[in-house]
Amino acid sequence: MSDEPLEASMGWGVVHLFYRVDRSRADEEPGGAKHVLDAIERLTADGTHQVLTFAALGHKADLGVMALGPDLARLQAFQQDLARAPLVLTWSYASLTEQSEYAATEADERARLAADEGVTDPDDVEARLAAWRDRIEHYREQRIHPRLPARRAISFYPMSKRRTGADNWFALDFADRKRLMAGHARVGRTYAGRVLQLITGSTGLDDWEWGVTLLADDPAALKEIVYEMRFDEVSARYADFGPFVTGLVLEPAEALRRVGLDA
Amino acid sequence: MSDEPLEASMGWGVVHLFYRVDRSRADEEPGGAKHVLDAIERLTADGTHQVLTFAALGHKADLGVMALGPDLARLQAFQQDLARAPLVLTWSYASLTEQSEYAATEADERARLAADEGVTDPDDVEARLAAWRDRIEHYREQRIHPRLPARRAISFYPMSKRRTGADNWFALDFADRKRLMAGHARVGRTYAGRVLQLITGSTGLDDWEWGVTLLADDPAALKEIVYEMRFDEVSARYADFGPFVTGLVLEPAEALRRVGLDA
Amino acid sequence: MSDEPLEASMGWGVVHLFYRVDRSRADEEPGGAKHVLDAIERLTADGTHQVLTFAALGHKADLGVMALGPDLARLQAFQQDLARAPLVLTWSYASLTEQSEYAATEADERARLAADEGVTDPDDVEARLAAWRDRIEHYREQRIHPRLPARRAISFYPMSKRRTGADNWFALDFADRKRLMAGHARVGRTYAGRVLQLITGSTGLDDWEWGVTLLADDPAALKEIVYEMRFDEVSARYADFGPFVTGLVLEPAEALRRVGLDA
Amino acid sequence: MSDEPLEASMGWGVVHLFYRVDRSRADEEPGGAKHVLDAIERLTADGTHQVLTFAALGHKADLGVMALGPDLARLQAFQQDLARAPLVLTWSYASLTEQSEYAATEADERARLAADEGVTDPDDVEARLAAWRDRIEHYREQRIHPRLPARRAISFYPMSKRRTGADNWFALDFADRKRLMAGHARVGRTYAGRVLQLITGSTGLDDWEWGVTLLADDPAALKEIVYEMRFDEVSARYADFGPFVTGLVLEPAEALRRVGLDA
Amino acid sequence: MSDEPLEASMGWGVVHLFYRVDRSRADEEPGGAKHVLDAIERLTADGTHQVLTFAALGHKADLGVMALGPDLARLQAFQQDLARAPLVLTWSYASLTEQSEYAATEADERARLAADEGVTDPDDVEARLAAWRDRIEHYREQRIHPRLPARRAISFYPMSKRRTGADNWFALDFADRKRLMAGHARVGRTYAGRVLQLITGSTGLDDWEWGVTLLADDPAALKEIVYEMRFDEVSARYADFGPFVTGLVLEPAEALRRVGLDA
Repeated sequence: MSDEPLEASMGWGVVHLFYRVDRSRADEEPGGAKHVLDAIERLTADGTHQVLTFAALGHKADLGVMALGPDLARLQAFQQDLARAPLVLTWSYASLTEQSEYAATEADERARLAADEGVTDPDDVEARLAAWRDRIEHYREQRIHPRLPARRAISFYPMSKRRTGADNWFALDFADRKRLMAGHARVGRTYAGRVLQLITGSTGLDDWEWGVTLLADDPAALKEIVYEMRFDEVSARYADFGPFVTGLVLEPAEALRRVGLDA
Repeated sequence: MSDEPLEASMGWGVVHLFYRVDRSRADEEPGGAKHVLDAIERLTADGTHQVLTFAALGHKADLGVMALGPDLARLQAFQQDLARAPLVLTWSYASLTEQSEYAATEADERARLAADEGVTDPDDVEARLAAWRDRIEHYREQRIHPRLPARRAISFYPMSKRRTGADNWFALDFADRKRLMAGHARVGRTYAGRVLQLITGSTGLDDWEWGVTLLADDPAALKEIVYEMRFDEVSARYADFGPFVTGLVLEPAEALRRVGLDA
Repeated sequence: MSDEPLEASMGWGVVHLFYRVDRSRADEEPGGAKHVLDAIERLTADGTHQVLTFAALGHKADLGVMALGPDLARLQAFQQDLARAPLVLTWSYASLTEQSEYAATEADERARLAADEGVTDPDDVEARLAAWRDRIEHYREQRIHPRLPARRAISFYPMSKRRTGADNWFALDFADRKRLMAGHARVGRTYAGRVLQLITGSTGLDDWEWGVTLLADDPAALKEIVYEMRFDEVSARYADFGPFVTGLVLEPAEALRRVGLDA
Repeated sequence: MSDEPLEASMGWGVVHLFYRVDRSRADEEPGGAKHVLDAIERLTADGTHQVLTFAALGHKADLGVMALGPDLARLQAFQQDLARAPLVLTWSYASLTEQSEYAATEADERARLAADEGVTDPDDVEARLAAWRDRIEHYREQRIHPRLPARRAISFYPMSKRRTGADNWFALDFADRKRLMAGHARVGRTYAGRVLQLITGSTGLDDWEWGVTLLADDPAALKEIVYEMRFDEVSARYADFGPFVTGLVLEPAEALRRVGLDA
Repeated sequence: MSDEPLEASMGWGVVHLFYRVDRSRADEEPGGAKHVLDAIERLTADGTHQVLTFAALGHKADLGVMALGPDLARLQAFQQDLARAPLVLTWSYASLTEQSEYAATEADERARLAADEGVTDPDDVEARLAAWRDRIEHYREQRIHPRLPARRAISFYPMSKRRTGADNWFALDFADRKRLMAGHARVGRTYAGRVLQLITGSTGLDDWEWGVTLLADDPAALKEIVYEMRFDEVSARYADFGPFVTGLVLEPAEALRRVGLDA
């Protein structure tokens, strides 16, 4: 069988697919939702891959579909399965989940414990580091092998770091970038619980360097986090943003009903 | 019932929808205006949501529809209702109403009373502040929960603040931005009565940071206010503008008649 | 009657409409030219509004239609009338005629008379100023309420003034802008008779700040004037240009015949 | 007869037309090549106008058609004639042939003869200048009234000179521009025989300032000349380039056969 | 016979063709894969030309086809053969294989042997240079006349070198460019075996200066190499990137099956 898996050595594949409903086909061929529901069932039945569906606001798409999992071959097959539905693929984004290269290291944490908390007793340090390792491992696992949570609103956008004149992110050394990203992450953490961010890497795979998926129950939170971060130097000086798509996360059958595809 | 409301913790949802009439469908399926009128009735009947319709000039759209209100789920449903009409959604903009972060505070007003008007007697100050609080509350309410007025001409455009080289709005500190915005607002106030501005926030939701809706009875006023503001430092150095759409605000049935959709 | 006029307090409305012929519709529904000719007749019959038609070169349009006059409601109705013809509106531009803010004032002329011509005798000055006022009034009237002349070739393009780094037109003070524009106008005057320019304002109405319509009998003159002006500081440092469309100005029936629409 | 010629006072009209074949129309209406061959015959029969056809590589076009000659009215008519064929006009470029303003003058040549060749005897100088005038006149004539040669490969692209910050071509004085262009021309001359360049002017007529048509028998030469020139200051600092289209120059009937249109 | 070859004096022709499946045609005309398989057979049967097919991720294309070989006439014919299949050509890229101008010379290698390895004995040097010449000749041959390897994932993108302000690649002298490129190449070599790069030249032929084809078995490697190189000065300061398309390399019949075309 030629559908052999294609897996990355690190990270899951992620495709964000944005569809306009082809109204005339949908009218001519009732039951168009079934193609989509079947495709989702096929991809997710064994629990290895996930799909999130949303009804988008505005002209960029009626329906948004985010799919992720280890096998790029199955993601491509999923996309082709959806091509049977009365949908027109108007935009998309391909990326891989990835660990942040700026994540704190054990040495960072050891230094922080000594400097900020005065913890230097070797046993204390070791106990604290063990707890830290668990937290970090959980966080890392959630970035590489995320479980998409159930939130009611979504925003997706791609972005790149700037390389223009004096504002050239890729000309900064690692320490400066790590320091800047740490400040950026601090803003993000003030939204912990309100907004879930999934940052996936797309350099070499799609037109921008990262894809950002934001999930929240409060639509205002999607606006507030991006706006607040824009004042952070990482965004203010070094970020270029692509198009933004916003929508209402819904169960697949409900999302399809809401965009006018019947089952 | 799955159509549960999706409301932001702060601000109403706003969608600007721009449609081209699909002439061949409109000819084949007479009565296309009814879909639009029914959709508007469905959204606005209970008084919680509003719709403004206009006949646009030029190729960007035949018909413009601005809808706003607390429930994003109903706005999405409204957009889908309109999909039944012989219309093609060519462009759109999604945003949330929001308070200006640069609005004068009570401390600002107290200082202004002392400095500009010599009002320092505590009772006088308190009386003046009470009146100021009423005005400010009315103004704030109109930004967060606006009632769209009846004016004859409209212009809509999205915009962002610049982040390029020395002209980086997001690298300015709050006091500088507040001072600059106050000067900008002064220009706006000279158009009070002639032009009504509604500025809504879209960072994280759509491709620009704000949407600007201008309403006036005199089409020349739409040009004059934007042109005059362009010399203000906030626009001259820090503003990037998206596409502009202009049109004639009309009652829905009349707007539809004017773009060639019969009832 | 709901078609009440919508007039600007200053300036006429102008729409430049660019159409591709829909060949399959034109073949199926002979007589497509009639819709256009009727629409033009309807708009221009009472002498208040004007229409200029041209056969464009290249892919941007087959047919160009420039319409202007006091009532924006009638211009919108005209655009909708044209929608019945087998034409696809591929691009357009909306603007208002306007006076130049940099036009010489009576004080400028009085100073010029003294400095350049040594005219200081009060009676002489007054006589010269009276003649100047007539000329200026005629020029002003032609900008605000233009009569389109019959020339054989046309070029239309929109433009904005730059706001980038050190080249920020809107950060210059009025005196500098007036001085620069005076030099620019001097170049324009060397083409008097060869090229007629109509500059209309579109800030707040369409995507650029001005629309420029050039009319000439010699197509080379359209190229020469824009090229020569490009070396002028106003263009060299401060102008950004949109798309250019060129064509052959023809009587409506002839223009329609030339783009393949029969009567 | 209303098809009166429209000729420029200087230069021939040039249109570059890029077509995609409309496969479904081509299948339904066999003989589509005839419309094109007839249109070419009509334009070129009297020897005043020329047409060059090529099969393009890639998605930008299947078929390229370059037409030139004195009468813009006939070029517009030619474009409309082609509209009967099963072709979709996807891109185009309109320009006029023109003399280079930086061409060497008789004074330049006289100075060069004295400085570089030590020719100062009046009779010698006069004899040399007479020969130079013939060469220059031939070169000038070939730019204004070119005869397109038969070469096997073509590349077309439009370009403009930059006006950004310190790299503003139009802010340079004439002597600097002439000196820079002379260096640029020297690179071009090293390709004499291998590559034929036709530079036509489009400021005020189309979106860029010049159109460049390169013709060569060796496709590698098209790449080499543009690449080598890119290091020249005129290109490196001052040139912005539009889209490039490349193809195989073929006799019309053969070009049409190669893009799938039968006769 | 008019299909005479068109070969470049240096380098093979390369076309990257990106297709969307036309679903309605594919449904109406079963067997659409056959047109593609026949076209590939026709181009590759004599072993002079190669084709690589892939199923792309996302909206940019369903199917990618990369074809290369000496004869541009056959590549054009191949593209036309594919036009019979129910495919829409959505994007493409045309280039020629080329030698790197920054490749090490024999003098470079001789200097390196002396400096880095202390090899100065004439016989030793000559023996080492003979081996070096073989390696370099193999490497050069693979760039000019590449044999495409079988890898499972592909990424294609075009790129240009920057010419903006202080970051102007084409204003650097050769020695600086060679030094910078050597550092860039060192990063590339750390991916030897994991990623195969084919860099082809397109200045003067298509919209960017180079096309880059990356092939790897591990999709993560496509991301990692481009991301790591972005920090290299050659990319950080001097590279502008076009669109990226990623996909799964598959045998033609399998690729066609995966995008929904049956045989």
